Amino acid sequence: MLNDVDLKVKLDKPAYKKAMDALDLRLAELQRKAREAGIPVLVVFEGWDAAGKGVVLGRLLEALDPRGYKVHHVASPTEDERLHPAPWRFWNRIPARGLMAFFNRSWYHQLLDDLARKKIHGMALTAAYERIRIFERQLADDGMVILKFFLHISKKEQAKRFEKLEKDKVFSWRVGKAERRHHKHFDEYCKAADAMLGETSLQESPWIVVPATDERLSIVKVAEALAEAIEKELAQRAECTRESIEFAPRQTNPLDAVDMSVALPREEYQERLPKLQAELRRLQHLCYVYRRPVIIVYEGWDASGKGGNIKRLLRKLDPRGFEVIPFAAPQGEEKTHHYLWRFWRALPKAGHFALFDRSWYGRVLVERVEGFAKPNEWQRAYSEINEFEQQLAEAGAVIVKFWMHVTKDEQLRRFEDRQNTPHKEWKITDEDWRNREKWDQYWEAVSDMLDRTSTAHAPWTIIEGNDKCYARVKAIETVIDAIKKQVPPLGKKKKVAEDE
Amino acid sequence: MLNDVDLKVKLDKPAYKKAMDALDLRLAELQRKAREAGIPVLVVFEGWDAAGKGVVLGRLLEALDPRGYKVHHVASPTEDERLHPAPWRFWNRIPARGLMAFFNRSWYHQLLDDLARKKIHGMALTAAYERIRIFERQLADDGMVILKFFLHISKKEQAKRFEKLEKDKVFSWRVGKAERRHHKHFDEYCKAADAMLGETSLQESPWIVVPATDERLSIVKVAEALAEAIEKELAQRAECTRESIEFAPRQTNPLDAVDMSVALPREEYQERLPKLQAELRRLQHLCYVYRRPVIIVYEGWDASGKGGNIKRLLRKLDPRGFEVIPFAAPQGEEKTHHYLWRFWRALPKAGHFALFDRSWYGRVLVERVEGFAKPNEWQRAYSEINEFEQQLAEAGAVIVKFWMHVTKDEQLRRFEDRQNTPHKEWKITDEDWRNREKWDQYWEAVSDMLDRTSTAHAPWTIIEGNDKCYARVKAIETVIDAIKKQVPPLGKKKKVAEDE
Repeated sequence: MLNDVDLKVKLDKPAYKKAMDALDLRLAELQRKAREAGIPVLVVFEGWDAAGKGVVLGRLLEALDPRGYKVHHVASPTEDERLHPAPWRFWNRIPARGLMAFFNRSWYHQLLDDLARKKIHGMALTAAYERIRIFERQLADDGMVILKFFLHISKKEQAKRFEKLEKDKVFSWRVGKAERRHHKHFDEYCKAADAMLGETSLQESPWIVVPATDERLSIVKVAEALAEAIEKELAQRAECTRESIEFAPRQTNPLDAVDMSVALPREEYQERLPKLQAELRRLQHLCYVYRRPVIIVYEGWDASGKGGNIKRLLRKLDPRGFEVIPFAAPQGEEKTHHYLWRFWRALPKAGHFALFDRSWYGRVLVERVEGFAKPNEWQRAYSEINEFEQQLAEAGAVIVKFWMHVTKDEQLRRFEDRQNTPHKEWKITDEDWRNREKWDQYWEAVSDMLDRTSTAHAPWTIIEGNDKCYARVKAIETVIDAIKKQVPPLGKKKKVAEDE
Repeated sequence: MLNDVDLKVKLDKPAYKKAMDALDLRLAELQRKAREAGIPVLVVFEGWDAAGKGVVLGRLLEALDPRGYKVHHVASPTEDERLHPAPWRFWNRIPARGLMAFFNRSWYHQLLDDLARKKIHGMALTAAYERIRIFERQLADDGMVILKFFLHISKKEQAKRFEKLEKDKVFSWRVGKAERRHHKHFDEYCKAADAMLGETSLQESPWIVVPATDERLSIVKVAEALAEAIEKELAQRAECTRESIEFAPRQTNPLDAVDMSVALPREEYQERLPKLQAELRRLQHLCYVYRRPVIIVYEGWDASGKGGNIKRLLRKLDPRGFEVIPFAAPQGEEKTHHYLWRFWRALPKAGHFALFDRSWYGRVLVERVEGFAKPNEWQRAYSEINEFEQQLAEAGAVIVKFWMHVTKDEQLRRFEDRQNTPHKEWKITDEDWRNREKWDQYWEAVSDMLDRTSTAHAPWTIIEGNDKCYARVKAIETVIDAIKKQVPPLGKKKKVAEDE
């Protein structure tokens, strides 16, 4: 790929000026149009050191309204970033609809380095490529324009540019150890880049290799490609050509098989619960020592006892190591980003517990039933969610998902009880009654969800919730079992974590 | 202070149970009331290792709805946090109105350690205390309830608890090097704590020393204090007793003295600008090497040429090292936090440039004129802003603030030009015309702002904006001068920064 690039092409000044005068106006207008149309644009700049990423990007930005873009400089992950799944720090920075994000270096930077230094291969490499493909495809499916530029120069040209930088002390820090190492092994890096570009040139996010010996030429090439990509997306939106997807009928009906008569005598509950809570506390510390994050999702009918169940689960845990994260309808920035964005942002650090009180499953429950998501959006969501959880599992997360189930009669009884008890009245709203009217539609949606998103690494557990004692004990036991299955007890090996 | 505490007091089980049954209900209700009243609550837990901070906090949380609080565990600052002013990481975590934030360790933790180890004294210590007082007072003035608990046990008791933790491998990591060091120098730490607690016990945020030998007693003490503090604030709000403040007339009228006839011939502009841009680019790298952040504020009349001025200023800068941050009316979360919160969050990393396109001065401009802030709020804001900028300056920031000035006639000419030029029409809105009608009120507000917030470390520069060429050259020259005055040229000393 890189070898075929003609690095000698040039553009003279008058041709450059003519091209850019037109491109500046065109890009400024396209930025406004993309903003109006709510199109997010993500541009990646990769390439050799001193290939001119900063200059090209700087010139490109001149055309744009600075209130509509952000520039992200990607360096080595911070400690906090290392304690999260690899894509976390990039999900955190995706542009909102209508805005542009420019990445100076990106999720490719570390990979290329690892490839060139032969630090990654086999399954790990396959997984890394797959993570990137999932990331970019999920964003593109949401309507994001993604462009990836690779700025290419020759080894000789790079040497010349290094020399120039090193002449001025103010700039010389830019040629450091890493840069010199890259230069020394230029050929290995070229080979690695060829492989990486080939594996990650997707239809929705192709690589564009830019010959960057001539600054003017590279600027025009990048500006043109950006303009064309936005124009293409604008045209596509005008035609509404998003394909609908195939939606196969579900295989199982898990809710039909639930025995709702199960119950636990209060005395037994009072005896067992404190022991289970103490055990979970111990396991919380164990997970911290091994730096394993634990993700617990609570979904369920209104008045199914989620709140009380969560409290019992947490009772003895160290509050410094868990967080309860409630989710209602998306607000503000949450609405202008990919629906998974706010959940990525909320992920716990390695070694911590996060309890999601409602979750990403809103996409296939309330958003489906109320029509907030279009059919192709919620139908696509099952596999997006599976991919999301797969990535959490790969990062070492223990994932437990609860569907808190009550019968329709029991729900009615609880609604009425809340309405008639002064200190519980605040718990019941008109919306609860409206949701109840859609019981059958939700039943459908829940069944589809349980059927399609119960995976080996993130299975659903249905909690029979008519009897609260039973439900609480089952929930905490389920979490304990999941951790025990995945996190080994402490052997004689030395401890993994240091106190933060 | 600590010596006077009776560490032998105890509470028996029945008394504890009776107290907590009542306190649980009381706290649950107070949480809801505080939420309704929009009262933010911030609770700090400090104290000796193994004094039971986690246990007390955990028991306290049992009473509360987990959707209404957040727990923050404060460890050593991350690299990113070290590249920002010290209070940044705490401002980032203040609770929104109606929510509660519990800090397990806080801004006091490092200070106590430094004090006990005699690493801080003199001016640095005075400044550290002052930073804390400013932080807490600004939050309290905004209506936040602040409680600070110090959990106290004896050295002997600590030794006993360490021993117990060390028996179980799952918990033993909690007694590490730091904990053992604290224990060894227990007396020095006690003395340091006495001094620190004395200096930072403010009327609006007093310290409460909790005897923590007996777990039950400490839990009840903390729960009671929290309940009382919320009740007090609720009662105060019902009475609306916020005091109004004295607002002295301003000393100067900077706008009256501006000569708006100044201009720069286009040829001179075209000759000088590129040189200034190249110089600023060099200075950008210099600031990076020295890790000095640069903060540039643009305020000004509508159509005063802010956008074009900003673009010229940035033209040659490395886009990886600056950010333009536009501010409109606060949205969502921004609205439910202290008004300075969104600006603290947006501060640049050390070594980077941030251009604020409108800023915290909105508090004393649009919020004052439109009545969005109450008189005592915007009147208080001048000193709050001065304190804010003082803290940025202390952290090494170069601060430049521009008031972009145009005459009323020139504004009208530009409005009409925008309205009559197709590709500029998007730039003019009804709001611009409405603002123009309030020209005199804004004039008053701007004059007060320039008079009260021009400080030695963060002076205002009025940019005569009728002539755009003049304005652009003056702005970039002002930034260059400010940097040169504060950032020394590179000598022979070795470079300060490594590439990120």
